[in-house]
Amino acid sequence: MVLLLVACIIDHIDIEVIWRPTNSHDSACAYNNKYRMKQPSCMDGFVETVECKTRLLVPALSLTERVPPKVPAFFNPAAKQSRDLSILAYRAFAPRLKKEKTLADGFTGIGARALRVAVEVPEIEQVFANDANPTAIEAARKSAELNGVSGKCRFSVNEVCKFLMKGNDSEERFGIVDLDPFGTPARHVDCVLRAALDDGLVSITATDTAVLCGVYPEVCLRRYYGRPLNNSYGNETALRLLTSLIALTASRLELAIKPVFSHATMHYLRVYAQVSVSSSEANDVYASIGHVMHCFNCGHRLATAEYDGNARCELCQKKLRVGGQLWTGPLHEKGFVAKMKEQAGKDEKSKKVLDAALDEIDDVPYYFKADEISSKLRTNPHSIPKIIEKLRAAGYKASKTSLNFGAFKTDARLDRIIDVLR
Amino acid sequence: MVLLLVACIIDHIDIEVIWRPTNSHDSACAYNNKYRMKQPSCMDGFVETVECKTRLLVPALSLTERVPPKVPAFFNPAAKQSRDLSILAYRAFAPRLKKEKTLADGFTGIGARALRVAVEVPEIEQVFANDANPTAIEAARKSAELNGVSGKCRFSVNEVCKFLMKGNDSEERFGIVDLDPFGTPARHVDCVLRAALDDGLVSITATDTAVLCGVYPEVCLRRYYGRPLNNSYGNETALRLLTSLIALTASRLELAIKPVFSHATMHYLRVYAQVSVSSSEANDVYASIGHVMHCFNCGHRLATAEYDGNARCELCQKKLRVGGQLWTGPLHEKGFVAKMKEQAGKDEKSKKVLDAALDEIDDVPYYFKADEISSKLRTNPHSIPKIIEKLRAAGYKASKTSLNFGAFKTDARLDRIIDVLR
Repeated sequence: MVLLLVACIIDHIDIEVIWRPTNSHDSACAYNNKYRMKQPSCMDGFVETVECKTRLLVPALSLTERVPPKVPAFFNPAAKQSRDLSILAYRAFAPRLKKEKTLADGFTGIGARALRVAVEVPEIEQVFANDANPTAIEAARKSAELNGVSGKCRFSVNEVCKFLMKGNDSEERFGIVDLDPFGTPARHVDCVLRAALDDGLVSITATDTAVLCGVYPEVCLRRYYGRPLNNSYGNETALRLLTSLIALTASRLELAIKPVFSHATMHYLRVYAQVSVSSSEANDVYASIGHVMHCFNCGHRLATAEYDGNARCELCQKKLRVGGQLWTGPLHEKGFVAKMKEQAGKDEKSKKVLDAALDEIDDVPYYFKADEISSKLRTNPHSIPKIIEKLRAAGYKASKTSLNFGAFKTDARLDRIIDVLR
Repeated sequence: MVLLLVACIIDHIDIEVIWRPTNSHDSACAYNNKYRMKQPSCMDGFVETVECKTRLLVPALSLTERVPPKVPAFFNPAAKQSRDLSILAYRAFAPRLKKEKTLADGFTGIGARALRVAVEVPEIEQVFANDANPTAIEAARKSAELNGVSGKCRFSVNEVCKFLMKGNDSEERFGIVDLDPFGTPARHVDCVLRAALDDGLVSITATDTAVLCGVYPEVCLRRYYGRPLNNSYGNETALRLLTSLIALTASRLELAIKPVFSHATMHYLRVYAQVSVSSSEANDVYASIGHVMHCFNCGHRLATAEYDGNARCELCQKKLRVGGQLWTGPLHEKGFVAKMKEQAGKDEKSKKVLDAALDEIDDVPYYFKADEISSKLRTNPHSIPKIIEKLRAAGYKASKTSLNFGAFKTDARLDRIIDVLR
């Protein structure tokens, strides 16, 4: 057995993985019986861990296996940062909720995110947590008891769209709807949007990153209605394809969305978007939908409104590859990100993402990696702040990007960047 | 009062509008009390009519007003032909249903189509009819009693997606799902697809014809993900935009569709499509999605796979307008249409549509109107059979089209058509 203690940097609260079994499911229960008598009841193969302020019953193997198993239930300790950012986003969003301060979590698993909201976002009055796996929901229910938040949590075992269609008791819809699927949210994005109140928030994850980053372009096209780019800024294209799907689905439902925060952490892409019921705003959706054209020969890239399958690179005359249709509007609402940052305390990891998002140029839907540029210059990579400083001094817009800390955004064309940095 | 008897040509069954009030809601009930004592109970403002074999309680005003009113419930006598075609389609499809021989009608109104299925398609074992209007459902329920089909009908008052998500008792899904909305089906198309069994049928109507035919192109783009063409074959573009929306939504849900029959009658567009659960078939969806390019100067038209906003007319060099993305695959499955025709008896109106569908060229997603051509030739319009004969004699493919009886389809280019017919 390994006792593991990891410092959690949000508000100095400790994350504490109580116990790590080596390989046995059974021993977890025996251990719990011996040491954790206060927990409501033993669950076979589960152990207690603490993430920030929240106690969670999780499958023992999820803390030891490199890829957390789906059986008996799924829990990914590595997704802690994404949950940390969710807590910040929901705390920042809660004051915007007019009446129903409710959150629905459609794929809650063992309830990690939903329970953290119940414990760590006091403004949210009721949390509806659902999963198709009854074992996961049993664990979530017991964890709610452990945290003393059973009164504000409602658990259900249902197919996700059926859960979302049922609504809560008093309202048809929810203030915040969270969807965190294995793989793609494409099959459920309409259900999520339908379940959100006017001026509510949807937050939607995609982890089918191989598809979104260009390994299976035909799957990407049918799931996200746009073409991916398998290149150095593929995760931004991926995030913008996800956002585009949400926006285009919303517009079909006479809704409009406005992203308030987006992030890409490893294979994990997530968009937080405010929803408004407005067919006139829905009519404008294509003002924020366009394409990114990329030259796989020289690395030139540009944004265009229209698809043009025959376009050629203005630098090297080779044929350009088209990414999209995709979201070309802002990925973040700066005021919202600032509110998130206010809540971040000493969570330096989240603050680094949020600082970059605050700095980020809004109207350039791609970035440049420093090492791409240095390999063209045949030098060691310049530091990002240095690059930004030089580009700004030369009269260009330039910024960090929250999507890659080794990259920068600019409205300068590739050849100008090379000129400036040479 | 006017007593109206209209011969119904399906199977020699008479359509009989029992009574037409002039303007009073109340007199209808008094009349019913006097003359129709057998009906289960009187409904204020409703009268009984018979459409083919089926007795229907309908709002009295729906039989006299030019535009049938929505209050107390909607019934459109002019949609009889579309219902006649539905009965033929469902009789043709029923043998393909493996287990659940069920039909769900999400916007049933006073139950016209659902009740006709219950009475006239004996192969369908259970009909689930739903509407948000309780008065309409009350009328439908009473009509079911009148027809002695209450045992196979289940009625509900619910939001359409909630109704479709609930499924029937024994299965999660339905064999046939019918959606016949006022206006656009865009907001509900995913719910319809989710509710259909593997190898089941969806049949979906659109009546937002002004949008689909190009009066509000930005609304069309956000509802149907394609651009309309406001021209002489706009109803085919409209039908293909509707089909494309169904296909693209299906592919996102890991489903594939195959249209078995489609028609456009006045402002009424309808697609019948078989659904299969297959992500590999879903991957192929874009093989049947493309664009129609139209020259508004000379009338030249062509189909292309890719969008090209800068393309110019090869006949007059003016800029081409792009319609789509839209469905470029077949609109009909010929074997299915033949089965429909077998059932049509003496229904000459339906047979005319079905004959044209049987003849129709599959791979040309537009047609030419005879009077378009004659105005170019400065002659009286040629007859369609004559045009087809001449084009075929010149080595071109040519056929009637079910979408316009004054038009034809051909793979000949406009200038060749003129040459052949001059």
